Formats: sequence, structure tokens, C-alpha cells
Amino acid sequence: MPDASTLNFKPDLLIHARWIALAHRETLLEQHAVAIADGRIIDILPSHVARERYDARETVTLAEHLLIPGLINLHTHAAMSLMRGMADDIPMMRWLQERIWPVERALVSPEFISDGTRLACAEMLLGGITCFNDMYFFPHAAAEAAVELGMRAVLGVTVLEFPSGYASDAADYLDKGLAALDAWREHPLINFCLAPHAPYSVSDASFEKIQILSAQLEVPVHVHIHETTDEIRQHLEEHGCRPLHRLNRLGLLGPQLIGVHAAHLLDDEIAALARNNCNVAHCPTSNLKLGCGIAPIGEMLAENINVGLGTDSAASNNRLDLLAEMRLASLLAKGKSGDASIVPAWKALQMATLAGARALGLERDIGSIEIGKYADLTAVRMDTLELSPCFDPVSHLIHCAGREDVSHVWVQGRCCVFDKTLLHCENANLKNNARLWHNRIVTHLQPNAT
Amino acid sequence: MPDASTLNFKPDLLIHARWIALAHRETLLEQHAVAIADGRIIDILPSHVARERYDARETVTLAEHLLIPGLINLHTHAAMSLMRGMADDIPMMRWLQERIWPVERALVSPEFISDGTRLACAEMLLGGITCFNDMYFFPHAAAEAAVELGMRAVLGVTVLEFPSGYASDAADYLDKGLAALDAWREHPLINFCLAPHAPYSVSDASFEKIQILSAQLEVPVHVHIHETTDEIRQHLEEHGCRPLHRLNRLGLLGPQLIGVHAAHLLDDEIAALARNNCNVAHCPTSNLKLGCGIAPIGEMLAENINVGLGTDSAASNNRLDLLAEMRLASLLAKGKSGDASIVPAWKALQMATLAGARALGLERDIGSIEIGKYADLTAVRMDTLELSPCFDPVSHLIHCAGREDVSHVWVQGRCCVFDKTLLHCENANLKNNARLWHNRIVTHLQPNAT
Repeated sequence: MPDASTLNFKPDLLIHARWIALAHRETLLEQHAVAIADGRIIDILPSHVARERYDARETVTLAEHLLIPGLINLHTHAAMSLMRGMADDIPMMRWLQERIWPVERALVSPEFISDGTRLACAEMLLGGITCFNDMYFFPHAAAEAAVELGMRAVLGVTVLEFPSGYASDAADYLDKGLAALDAWREHPLINFCLAPHAPYSVSDASFEKIQILSAQLEVPVHVHIHETTDEIRQHLEEHGCRPLHRLNRLGLLGPQLIGVHAAHLLDDEIAALARNNCNVAHCPTSNLKLGCGIAPIGEMLAENINVGLGTDSAASNNRLDLLAEMRLASLLAKGKSGDASIVPAWKALQMATLAGARALGLERDIGSIEIGKYADLTAVRMDTLELSPCFDPVSHLIHCAGREDVSHVWVQGRCCVFDKTLLHCENANLKNNARLWHNRIVTHLQPNAT
Repeated sequence: MPDASTLNFKPDLLIHARWIALAHRETLLEQHAVAIADGRIIDILPSHVARERYDARETVTLAEHLLIPGLINLHTHAAMSLMRGMADDIPMMRWLQERIWPVERALVSPEFISDGTRLACAEMLLGGITCFNDMYFFPHAAAEAAVELGMRAVLGVTVLEFPSGYASDAADYLDKGLAALDAWREHPLINFCLAPHAPYSVSDASFEKIQILSAQLEVPVHVHIHETTDEIRQHLEEHGCRPLHRLNRLGLLGPQLIGVHAAHLLDDEIAALARNNCNVAHCPTSNLKLGCGIAPIGEMLAENINVGLGTDSAASNNRLDLLAEMRLASLLAKGKSGDASIVPAWKALQMATLAGARALGLERDIGSIEIGKYADLTAVRMDTLELSPCFDPVSHLIHCAGREDVSHVWVQGRCCVFDKTLLHCENANLKNNARLWHNRIVTHLQPNAT
């Protein structure tokens, strides 16, 4: 990292903001600036001091904006953006078995992943998301798409026991995923997770192999758990225990685990997740939309479980929108518990930033606005009519703002969205590709339709 | 209504839309047009036929839009927009007693109502809302504000037993409200409700008077009911029964009743609401945010209770956004019941349109796109990147679109929002006024702050 104290040192970028949210300290700075060099934050200081001290190559002034850490989407299947709204108002297992899986079997290919991930990245960046944790197929194509748009991604070495257009069996999924992991090892924007799909779709032998690999490679394990009561009941019938019990027996519970959904937990399961320093990816919209229920977030946070936020896919949400998930996480926890003071605004912002970074093992580099971390930053414009008046910008961010208020996004110091305009990809291309895939999907679902 | 069959008849306006949602019939028209004269819909027909038949004074073509009935906000306190975000993450009764009521006592005036209602109307119109049911003070000032912006309003003859800056006691509230009702009787955009605040703040004598007036004047009764368990418990202690039981005894249960919130209902209370053809205004965001709970919407709809949607005030939401409430109503009902198929997209749209109109006694004039009704219409642009691809525009409206996608709004055939621009009021004025009131409120809450 360059030494900012050197005389005549020129930062690459100086961002002045009306407000800066240091979410990790629940501290709001006013009229401060962030100085950036080589992709990292090198200083945070009052704007009037920054103007004296730094002659940056580029200066951006955000006069009526709140600057926050870039949002981290802790669970998605990005390329499913192409199936957005394909199957709404349908229960989870029918949704998966009758709609999603058949289309995936028929159409998923590197081209599908490339087009779908680019569409998802564009949507996420425009909504202030700078990093996503993906579980899907053809991670090489997904990595290329994310890098093209300038976005940070953690890609899944997805593992399933059944075949898809991507791989034939668990060993084949692992081989292909690990090859991608190897190929992208040096890229600063790309990281990997091991991503066994779920206890109901992955065998003991595969989970054991994954646990060993996770320790060897020092990467997280990203897995759906306890999403539906049906899945838990079926697991009880087939394995004689609830899914988390089996994962515990197989040695999976630990700080490397990112358990997605966790909508249904017994008290001792919450205690086990806490004791083992597991992480949870809470996906409130998806859980409601598929009729899965409401995760016990209040109880998990009371046990100091690290809970991040995910959008899940655009087929079960249908927005890849963490502003909406922050708000809903706060609202649902209040409504479920009857306590209006839980998951207050700062906490919701931490869930969508630092908690996600910690779960991904990236808290040294991202998740907060701190000197030394990558400049993954999002600016939200707070002076619209819909946000007037503004008593507390952080409270407004959670309870009032929407992704439509996101104005600027930087990933590793590089601007990806400037004044609501996506910089590294053409909107028209993305929309045209989406239309082409829409037609292919409709033809597949209704082969006799014109 | 003009006779459209007359030769050479010129409608005032012809709106061509890619899609039109006839929500009352769950029917989606494609490439159709709506013809409007004297503020009312005079024809709905295929665009190619409309081009032959009508030479309208004005034509608007919405090539990638969904046209829906104007949204009806069945419960709000519009002028509280000036208290937006003033008191977040605080339980309901503390919120009311320590924050909202003190500020209201000190600052509410005709100027406050005028500025606050104009801000709220602007926000609501920009978000596709064409009519709101208001419960607040100085209805004359609120009516003027709504008319200035071109919006339809149903204003409350608010009744409370305790004094405010507006009135001294229940008789004074009634006198002032009824005088406003009389003064605005002939205005096509303005209607009135009787609005006793709640069972805990209104006496038996006042409720009895209101019930008689409601029958005489043929106006609805708009009242908060069963918002919190605390309120119900306290009512049991003070009155020996639950609030709905008392309202029933006082003769209030009937088709004129709009019960707001109804978050906590016993089975026999749901049955009583159904048997008496009562209406419910469901405010899902507000109920969650104040920790009040989740209303049993699935159960109410199963009993055919007419349930509309409200935003409540910007102090407990903090968005006056029915796109968000439609989505949340659908999501919450699914999540609470475990049934992903309940409150599907069409139902959510009906709740925010025709159900609201019916509750307000205005279903003859508004709430659906039908020949003879007022042209209260909202257009939502469906071709953004975030809405791509689009399999089903109505499902997309509920599960994917946001108020940021609303492009055009007409009230009684008059355009109020054109291509996302508010027509009858200056944004800058509204924002400046909000800033002035913000400063006054901050000074009042923290008298020693600078």
C-alpha cells in the first residue's frame, strides 16, 4: 500500500461525501472524504483537510449523498436472472421440480451463464452491490462475466449428485469447479467457495470430501440448509435425523460454513451454529415468496451468530436488491418478535456488508470503510423528494431509500456506476440477450406455443 | 357521459399501451387503447381499431408499459410525511407518546398540513397512487393540497377525545370536520370519511354519534382497530372486552366500516367482520416496523372480507409506496401461511385498487379500468434492465417492479405525472419546505441543539 504521508503523493481518487457510514463502528461522518490509491482506501479525513492534503488524479463530490461500504450479496444464483418471474406464486418444491430444473436441464450452457450473470451483475451494481456469493454452473463463464462488468464475485464449486448440462456426477462437478478455482486463483476480483447444493441433494461421501477440501484450500462451504419444513421432514425419514444434525456429524459445522436460509431452527440448532461460529445467509424475500417461513434472525443475532443477507435468485425474489433485503430483514425481525427496536438500521447495514465479508473470509479486504481495505464503495443520493426530510441518513437508507437512489459504485477503486449509469456494459445488449433467452425458455415450457 | 358512437366524436385522450390490466376480471389486454372524455373512460379497444375510430385531442403511446388502475392508498396520515424517519426502530406506544404526539401538539397547523400533504401527494402520485384515504387534522388544508396536485382524496373527519392544535374535544373535532365536509361536497376529487381515531382514544358517546352520522351522510367510518396486543389487553382491562366487541355493541360493524390494521384477530372476530361486510385496510410495512405483528390476511381473504392496502404514515413506514405494500402483502401472506400460492399477483393488484375503492364506497367511479369509470390510471414501464426478461407483466408488477418504474399517472383523465415528472408542483419547493419543517422539528425535539 502506498504511503500517504509522502510529500506530493497523488491518490488516484478522492471522494467527498455529505455523509460516510462507518458501519463497523456505527459512526456517521459528515463532510468527510475517502482517499484511494491502488484500489485501496488510504485515508479517511474531513473534506477541508483532504482538500489541503491531497491533489488526487480524480475527485468526485457527493454533496447530498451517503457513502456506505459496497453491499455484499451473500447468496444468489446470478444467471437465473434469465428466469426472473418465470414461475411466481408456486410452492418451493413444485417451483424447483416442475419449472426451474427442467429449464436448467434443457438450456443451461456457458452462454446462458455468461448472459445471465452479466444481466445479474448489471442489476446488482446499479443497486449498490459490489460483491456476490454465487452458487451455479460453469463458474468460469460467471467469473468472466463479473470481471467484464468490474464486479467482485465469490463463485461456487457447486456439487450435486445428479447430472446437469454442466456435469455428470459429484466427482465431475468437483473436478470442473476446482479447475476453475485454480485458473482464477490470482485474480483480485474473483474468489471461490465450495458449494454443495443441500443436504437433500448431496451424499455423505461428497460432504466429507468437501469438508477436507475446505480445510486444505481455506475456502468457505456454501450450502442451503433448513429452507423448508418438508425438506427437514423428508431428511428425518431418509436419514433418521434433521439435516443440521447430519452436517454436524460429518464435521461441516465450523467458521467456514455459510448456511443459507436456516428458516427453521430448533433452539439447540441455533446453539450449535453459535458454538461452532457458523455463518448464516438470510434471504428474507425468497423465504416468504416460496412460502418457506420466517427465519429466527432475532434469536440468531442474540446468540452472536454472524448473519449476512442474500437475495437468492431472481427466480425466487425477483429483484437482486439488497436495499430491499436490508429493509425486509429489519421489518420481519421486528414483526416476528414484536420488538420494534431489534435489527435497527446500523445492524441491517452491517448484515449486508461486514457480516457478508466475514462469512466469505474476506473481512480483511472488504465489508467496511477502513484504511487498508479495498475501496468497494456505494453512494446513495439522499435529497430526493421521496427521501425528504432527512433526520438520520442511516435510518433513511434502511427504512426509506431504495436501490433507485444508488448513484455511484466503485469496486476496488474503479468506478462501475457513475450517476446511475452502468459503465462497463451496454444496457441495450443485456436487454436484448434477456429477450432472446426469454423466447427460448417460453418455447421450451410451451413447445406448441407460437 | 359523452356518446362515443357519435360520428366525428373527439375523445380528450387516447392512451395506447403494450398491456392493460383489467384487474377486476384478471384479464390482460395486449396492444389495446383506452379512450377518455370528460375525465371518464369511454372505450377500451384494440389499438389498431382505436386508431381508425378515434381522432383524439391528445394521444399517448406507452410502447413498453403496463397500464393499471390508479392505486388507492386505503390508510395514511399524509401530512406526517414531514416526520418521515423522525423516530425509527422504536416500539409503537413509545413512538406515539414520546415522539409523534409531542411534535404534533407543538407544530401541527394549517401550514404544516398544507406542506406535509403536498409532499405526500407528490410522493404518492410519482409512485402511481391516485387516491388516498387520510386521517389527520385540518382537512380543509389537506383538500386544498390534494386538489393543487390534481390528486383524489378521501379526507377524515378525525375524532379524538383529547385536544390538539386543531380542536379541543370530540365535539369540536366533529364540528370542524363536518364543516369541511360541507364545504367540499361538490368537488369531484374530494370525498370524506368519518375517522374516529381508535377504540382507545374515542368514547362510546362519540362512536354512537359517528355511527348515526355515517348512516345519515352515507360516508364510511375509518378507524384503527387491533393494531397491537397491548392495546387489546388494555381495552380488556378498561372496558371488560376486546375493542371489536365494543365496536360491535355500539353498532359500528357494517359495510361502512374500514378497520385499519386488524393485526390481531380471533377466529370469531374474523367471522364477525365477514358477516357484517366490514372492510379492512392492511398496512403490512407499518405493522412490521412498529413490532405490531402480521395480520391474518390469508384467513380474512378466505372469508371474503374486502381487504385493501394502506401505507400508513411516512413516520411508520417510511415510504408512501403501494408497489412496496402490494409486494409485501403477497410475500407476508405466503410466508405466514406457508402457502406460496396465496395472494397471487392479480389478487395483490385488486387489493390496492378495487378493494380500496369498494371500502371507500367509490367503486362506481374508481378502482378498475372499465367504461364509465373515472380515468384514474397508472402506467408502469416494464422494459428496464432490472425488469428483464418479462414473462408475465402482472407478476412482474407485484414481484419485481418498484415505484421507480411508474412513468405516467392520470387522475380523472388529467395527467399528473408525465414520464416520471410531476406536473402540477415544483419538486424544489416541496423539498425546501420539508427542510424548513425538519429544522423546526429538530429544534423542538432537542431545544438545546444548534
